[in-house]
Amino acid sequence: MTQVTERLTNGVDTQRLFATLDAITAQPEIAKFQFRARNRWIGGAHNRSVIKDFGGAGGEDTSRAEPFVLDAGEPAVLLGTDTGPNPAELLLHALAACLTTSLVYVAAARGVRLTEVESALEGDIDLRGALGLSNEVRNGYEGIRVTFSVRGDAPPERLREVVERAQARSAVFDVVSHGVPVAVTVAND
Amino acid sequence: MTQVTERLTNGVDTQRLFATLDAITAQPEIAKFQFRARNRWIGGAHNRSVIKDFGGAGGEDTSRAEPFVLDAGEPAVLLGTDTGPNPAELLLHALAACLTTSLVYVAAARGVRLTEVESALEGDIDLRGALGLSNEVRNGYEGIRVTFSVRGDAPPERLREVVERAQARSAVFDVVSHGVPVAVTVAND
Repeated sequence: MTQVTERLTNGVDTQRLFATLDAITAQPEIAKFQFRARNRWIGGAHNRSVIKDFGGAGGEDTSRAEPFVLDAGEPAVLLGTDTGPNPAELLLHALAACLTTSLVYVAAARGVRLTEVESALEGDIDLRGALGLSNEVRNGYEGIRVTFSVRGDAPPERLREVVERAQARSAVFDVVSHGVPVAVTVAND
Repeated sequence: MTQVTERLTNGVDTQRLFATLDAITAQPEIAKFQFRARNRWIGGAHNRSVIKDFGGAGGEDTSRAEPFVLDAGEPAVLLGTDTGPNPAELLLHALAACLTTSLVYVAAARGVRLTEVESALEGDIDLRGALGLSNEVRNGYEGIRVTFSVRGDAPPERLREVVERAQARSAVFDVVSHGVPVAVTVAND
């Protein structure tokens, strides 16, 4: 029990973390992953995604017995019935989650023990874009602000470095701040 | 009852939709919204977002009695305990939800009655970037593919046009494909 506790830093098994990094260095192709979601419209602004399988580490993952089921919606002011967070809010959740996990893993790898990580996200959007009322206003967020509160057994400047490194390596931060090619096709059989 | 049914196309109250567009045209500042999320680290790859309040339509929304609570995690192969979809998967949910809602609203505005909207999303990612093992590989997705299956009371080319218009106006599609400035700060009090 003592041994298991010592292996975990911030709840991360650092021995396994370093072994994973070594394995990828020796065999880079196992780092290629494919994540997936299936979505189905239910009615109005209500739709639902199912997330279960993914590919990676050289094969198909089969570790998930049950899928994750996530709803989306819009509040009344945006013509929905509030069946879930709206898509723009869901994007903030994905961003917060990725920055936080990156931060926790980076801290674990550096031996920094965290006691608290909280973040508040705000995104400004002018809906004239998405509603088709203006071609001068973009459809998406004009900007997103993320404010972290981080506490742990390291001085403030060390905690700040961990946040900076997390930002420099976060997958969702990269996509949201730089964009990625998205191919949309219609395949009606 | 008949009247209510007739006002709804795809579950969207088109009379309210057009009234909303008219109101924004008359008073563009009511289209400015601010969406928010608060996230808290729980342990390891497990963190949780709370989504409730937002600003828009000229004030603070108070319509939500309860917050939405969303968990994130990582599967075992990525050193987590599968406490939720991982952040990269959550991004796919946000993207699917936004494209689908845009599609449903555009169809409603055009009088196209939909019977089915399904989508499958795949994102390819080489984790050497996010894991800090390569500077030549980006941290985020290299590309995302979205495949829609759409059925309704319109010919295939009309349904295709609705998908194209949805893509041209989706807020999350815009952010994910073009990027947005994200400011990350640490504010430890």
